[in-house]
Amino acid sequence: MNVDAVWREHLDRQAITDLIHAYCWHFDMNEPVALAALLTLDACVDYGPEFPDLQGREAIGQAVAKGLETLFAATSHHVSNIRITLDGPDEARSDCYLYAWHRYRDGRPESELWGRYHHRFRRTPDGWRIAGLVLKAAGARDFHRSVMHPIGRRD
Amino acid sequence: MNVDAVWREHLDRQAITDLIHAYCWHFDMNEPVALAALLTLDACVDYGPEFPDLQGREAIGQAVAKGLETLFAATSHHVSNIRITLDGPDEARSDCYLYAWHRYRDGRPESELWGRYHHRFRRTPDGWRIAGLVLKAAGARDFHRSVMHPIGRRD
Amino acid sequence: MNVDAVWREHLDRQAITDLIHAYCWHFDMNEPVALAALLTLDACVDYGPEFPDLQGREAIGQAVAKGLETLFAATSHHVSNIRITLDGPDEARSDCYLYAWHRYRDGRPESELWGRYHHRFRRTPDGWRIAGLVLKAAGARDFHRSVMHPIGRRD
Repeated sequence: MNVDAVWREHLDRQAITDLIHAYCWHFDMNEPVALAALLTLDACVDYGPEFPDLQGREAIGQAVAKGLETLFAATSHHVSNIRITLDGPDEARSDCYLYAWHRYRDGRPESELWGRYHHRFRRTPDGWRIAGLVLKAAGARDFHRSVMHPIGRRD
Repeated sequence: MNVDAVWREHLDRQAITDLIHAYCWHFDMNEPVALAALLTLDACVDYGPEFPDLQGREAIGQAVAKGLETLFAATSHHVSNIRITLDGPDEARSDCYLYAWHRYRDGRPESELWGRYHHRFRRTPDGWRIAGLVLKAAGARDFHRSVMHPIGRRD
Repeated sequence: MNVDAVWREHLDRQAITDLIHAYCWHFDMNEPVALAALLTLDACVDYGPEFPDLQGREAIGQAVAKGLETLFAATSHHVSNIRITLDGPDEARSDCYLYAWHRYRDGRPESELWGRYHHRFRRTPDGWRIAGLVLKAAGARDFHRSVMHPIGRRD
């Protein structure tokens, strides 16, 4: 492996990590337009089996905006355990852990989620963007959704 | 961008990340002298609107020491979502998420805080140091302080 | 410091960080065989003062497998605040923070742990492996173990 390749890969990993953090930041700041700008035009998001997959930047942005405006009064999405795999020069995937806290507009109890984000990324002329996202749950407390994709733990 | 610049920036980011972690470590170990040594002499800390800003390494160290000795029996400050911006060769800023847990000396209920740290850093002859810190809160449970700087979420 | 040394150290740190994350991943997926493969043959694990230290990959794998099969219905091990120290070319140590959530098979209340992992690592012909692990606790809620190694906070 040559030094140039190492540093290019390092910069890609840093950009991808910043992208994951930017998604959380804009979600928690109720900035759905800025969040949508992190996505590819054809991005696909799967927040769980209760809903059909969200297809395309515009549909995802609208769905996130609706949730942020009608459901949540405050949220905090803490990600960790990030593992990134580069698939060629312009594609990447990652798995990370999510610990999320939520307060609701209607005053129901605050909730916590111990989850996973599975991301796909693509390099565009404007830089790395999120091309795919699947949310899974190891567990939850008082979460507003009763059915989530399981993480696939062996019984 | 040349390789030298990339790896110098990489080492700066690593040192700054270690500094954020060291602050948490010494806070949770009740080591206010070691914590204060991470600060510039003229550092400024804003823990919230209830208190005047703490000005200078000595004042900050004394205030932290008092809190650690009188209020907390145990704490744990978990940081994540760290995003660092380098502003020239000797200045930097970062935003990160904080999930903090606290047990109190007087036996009141344990508390949790879902917050943000906004840091400023300066390179000194002894290495990178914390020059500024502002704490904000997305939410809290049973926290000992009722008023915090909000994260600025759009309504 | 030369560029070659910087990027070699960078790759070592990345491999070690991935190893910490892989341990959490396989634990939470109930994959004790894959978890054991992350360890050196002579690895030593100290999960607390209630138990004798676990000596060797096989003994550790068996103990983890038993816990995963008999005690836990779901777990989530969120690590952060990772600080790695390289000790020569083939040895390393790290400290990190652990926030862990657990659901039990027998229906007792879910638990949370605010802890620390202290790792030792060794480079083997197959790459970096975990050679030692000590778990300490800053605090816990409803945890199934009553006595843990303390983090050593000054009184």
